[in-house]
Amino acid sequence: MRNLIEATLDEILPPSGERPSLLHEAMRYAVGSGGKRIRPLVCLAAAEAVGGRAQDARHAAAAIELLHNYTLVHDDLPAMDDDTERRGSPTTWAKFGEANAILAGDALQALAFAAAAKSPRNAAQIVAALAAAALGVVQGQVEDVAPSRSADRETVEFIYGHKTADLFVAAAAMGGYAGGGGDADIAALREFALNLGLAFQYEDDLLDGDSPYSRDETERLVRETTERALAALSRLPGDTSRLAGIATGLVGRTS
Amino acid sequence: MRNLIEATLDEILPPSGERPSLLHEAMRYAVGSGGKRIRPLVCLAAAEAVGGRAQDARHAAAAIELLHNYTLVHDDLPAMDDDTERRGSPTTWAKFGEANAILAGDALQALAFAAAAKSPRNAAQIVAALAAAALGVVQGQVEDVAPSRSADRETVEFIYGHKTADLFVAAAAMGGYAGGGGDADIAALREFALNLGLAFQYEDDLLDGDSPYSRDETERLVRETTERALAALSRLPGDTSRLAGIATGLVGRTS
Repeated sequence: MRNLIEATLDEILPPSGERPSLLHEAMRYAVGSGGKRIRPLVCLAAAEAVGGRAQDARHAAAAIELLHNYTLVHDDLPAMDDDTERRGSPTTWAKFGEANAILAGDALQALAFAAAAKSPRNAAQIVAALAAAALGVVQGQVEDVAPSRSADRETVEFIYGHKTADLFVAAAAMGGYAGGGGDADIAALREFALNLGLAFQYEDDLLDGDSPYSRDETERLVRETTERALAALSRLPGDTSRLAGIATGLVGRTS
Repeated sequence: MRNLIEATLDEILPPSGERPSLLHEAMRYAVGSGGKRIRPLVCLAAAEAVGGRAQDARHAAAAIELLHNYTLVHDDLPAMDDDTERRGSPTTWAKFGEANAILAGDALQALAFAAAAKSPRNAAQIVAALAAAALGVVQGQVEDVAPSRSADRETVEFIYGHKTADLFVAAAAMGGYAGGGGDADIAALREFALNLGLAFQYEDDLLDGDSPYSRDETERLVRETTERALAALSRLPGDTSRLAGIATGLVGRTS
């Protein structure tokens, strides 16, 4: 699965040697700097869960990973979170400069849609799902970086829902469309992924030490959302073992 | 035609009153702050030129205008051209802050693809054409803002070709697809729009006073590219009068 994701990303990203090299290097740096590739894995596994082949969803999977990486590049910018390091390496702007990082992020978003449009089946639905998530992520981020950001539960849920869960929901829906799923399949996948995304974000904030919830409360929320995610899988006609593995693998993770 | 464009943009842009209001206000500010709407006009007219209706291309037309406006928002940023005014009004970042302008631009790009995916006909091709242009625009911009930017003709042509012409080419191709055009129609539309875009950029740089060409040379280039654009129209099966009007209207313009 991972090989399929890496190979498709490499196929879609413009060659570093091609003009303008600096942009293409920055794009490859941003995408290639590690990461667990969870979202594209969800996408490929979703295609299997509706009875399709992972291979059918490879463009959709690459698209969601490109989109995710563009958001990281822009989140790290000086005007946003002002981070100079990510996973032990310089962030894209720290390495290539601010202007090039803005542009590399912009180009990665464009490329995500180019990849999504290449899906051999249901391309319009796949693009629409990606676009909805791309807008949702920004809506979540705007609230997150607002200087007057309040910590009330409604705001936190808005940010979690959009900034994180929207991408998981899109990943699953895109994979479902790519695998030829019907409306009921896509609805079940969305429910699975919304809960998976929330569980992921609850854990992430606890690991980062900036959770608005206590450890006990977080553990309860993770357990509940994971259970809801797994319950949604029972409504799917295909092989859901890989999606179940992703959901249970997230519980109690340490990084 | 203009009413159709404005109404479709208004329909697609999220309401200012909806959360997060600041983002939606910034997006509407960026899109609504005037402009000639040339690219969406080309898109609607291209649908007519292949024998379709302008109405069929309204989502595609809105998409290309949203994409164009996102590029302006990002071009104006402090890390890029650092412009505080555009057409006599504060630029988006000058009014809403840098972080919100980056995010509003990102959201407009996402929305452009959401709009394109709504096209009732040939949505996947329309999205692919938009994505190719979205990547091309960034490639042109990277070369344009490079500190070591050389003024050799090859570089200037690269920047003109990508930063400007790519969007015109996409506008025409998207309109052609939306109107149900075949491959030969799309090829003719692309040739028309490439030359229209180059003519537009030659004139623009002359008006802005930063053309690398002399006035005589520019006038010759505008004349030649406009003639080539008009010649391409003869290969189209539908009503090309509006496209011809746009091309001839650009020659000798003063703003």
